[in-house]
Amino acid sequence: MAGPRRRRMRAVPRHAAIELIALDGIPEVTPGDDLASLIAAALERGGIGLRDEDVLVVTQKVVSKAEGRVVALASVQPSAEALEFATRWGKDPRQVELVLRESVEVVRMESGLIIARTRHGFVCANAGVDLSNVGGGEVATLLPDDPDASAGALREALGERSGARPAIVISDSFGRPWRNGIVNVAIGTAGIQALADLRGRPDAQGREMRSTVIALADELASAADLAGGKVAQRPVVLVRGYAYTPSGTDDRGAQALVMPREQDLFP
Amino acid sequence: MAGPRRRRMRAVPRHAAIELIALDGIPEVTPGDDLASLIAAALERGGIGLRDEDVLVVTQKVVSKAEGRVVALASVQPSAEALEFATRWGKDPRQVELVLRESVEVVRMESGLIIARTRHGFVCANAGVDLSNVGGGEVATLLPDDPDASAGALREALGERSGARPAIVISDSFGRPWRNGIVNVAIGTAGIQALADLRGRPDAQGREMRSTVIALADELASAADLAGGKVAQRPVVLVRGYAYTPSGTDDRGAQALVMPREQDLFP
Repeated sequence: MAGPRRRRMRAVPRHAAIELIALDGIPEVTPGDDLASLIAAALERGGIGLRDEDVLVVTQKVVSKAEGRVVALASVQPSAEALEFATRWGKDPRQVELVLRESVEVVRMESGLIIARTRHGFVCANAGVDLSNVGGGEVATLLPDDPDASAGALREALGERSGARPAIVISDSFGRPWRNGIVNVAIGTAGIQALADLRGRPDAQGREMRSTVIALADELASAADLAGGKVAQRPVVLVRGYAYTPSGTDDRGAQALVMPREQDLFP
Repeated sequence: MAGPRRRRMRAVPRHAAIELIALDGIPEVTPGDDLASLIAAALERGGIGLRDEDVLVVTQKVVSKAEGRVVALASVQPSAEALEFATRWGKDPRQVELVLRESVEVVRMESGLIIARTRHGFVCANAGVDLSNVGGGEVATLLPDDPDASAGALREALGERSGARPAIVISDSFGRPWRNGIVNVAIGTAGIQALADLRGRPDAQGREMRSTVIALADELASAADLAGGKVAQRPVVLVRGYAYTPSGTDDRGAQALVMPREQDLFP
């Protein structure tokens, strides 16, 4: 049965479909881990041969942990401002201190929430600072220093191990004004155009699309979250069958998703 | 060859995967069309048996057109306010007039953009009013009157035709503050909990998740856009293999995604 079964697995699906495949068996990541090796091993155990045409969506948390972007809370000395806000709202003052340090601008600081602009230009809760447990100790994970560079390095390392250079999207979960709930968005990309600019192209009715720029990397991050999930905690999702547009030498990464403040109606 | 080929198509994939399948052959939709019949026919032509476990993501545009939520621009008499804004920014004053009529509040009206709150509570560009061509005439499509009811009616009609009652998500493309590009979000749902509230549940490290409410219906809408796309214009996407949480009798639809203004830091 092994032969035919194997062949059936590889059958071309009847309908061209995009597949979202969460990788099993990525272990708890700790500082210094080689994330590319962990992913390559998970792919191999799953019998999945990586292809240039694939997109790998990886959560920020495992990238940050592998890169050592973790801070032991015990080592943090909160400022007076952090202490006051934390006391008022029942927060950990050491986390608040890290949030303020990671922010270039506090956009809102009320009702126990801090919405901040990070130095990458992302506007999100807590400037991306998450509380976590690593090796039993209480730590905060910070966003990668340069998530596009993290994505690029992961792509190169996977290329060395597997011969394939897929597109990489590093995802994080952000809230939004006006809508309940968080969704996953892209904070770093490599090898893929994060935005599809369709302006000037005709739509199906031959009408020119005037304002259609699509944040495809954000949509890929959201799609991957459906497969990886918050509870299942499978931090790496393979997207297969999606014909992404490769970035050229002008790869701006996920920085292309950051709206310039002068264009923003909600600066 | 037909027998084995058929069997191969139905093989269980080796890795549990979510599939995003854009339906081919949905024709241009016009007012009065029976959308459920068009979808059922497309599924049948594709050899896809609909299941209760599936999610169908349908773009707002085809729902609005089928429901006759279209206005011939020639019939619209613009107000002085609409005329002034349109003249200043090179817009069609009749479209601006419709945008103002569809808005309960104009959130921003500058740089040629109108960001408005619709009576459903959605904050989006142009209150969801799109210019389009229907039968050669220039029309505006408006959002459905009650997108959750539209989703519910479509679900019932599909159930009558196919015996299966999948979850329904009606999607539209919204911009966001701070980020370039639009992404698809949910404006109507039926049969599915739009939000997953994981607060109080332990994460993989046993730490209680304090603020994790995930806008799954928005993530489904974004995922579907990758398969359906703006250019390909395949307005219906089947999501198969995603274990959604069915809504109970307390189905609030996509209204669960609307943030109450008193909780909003950006009201």
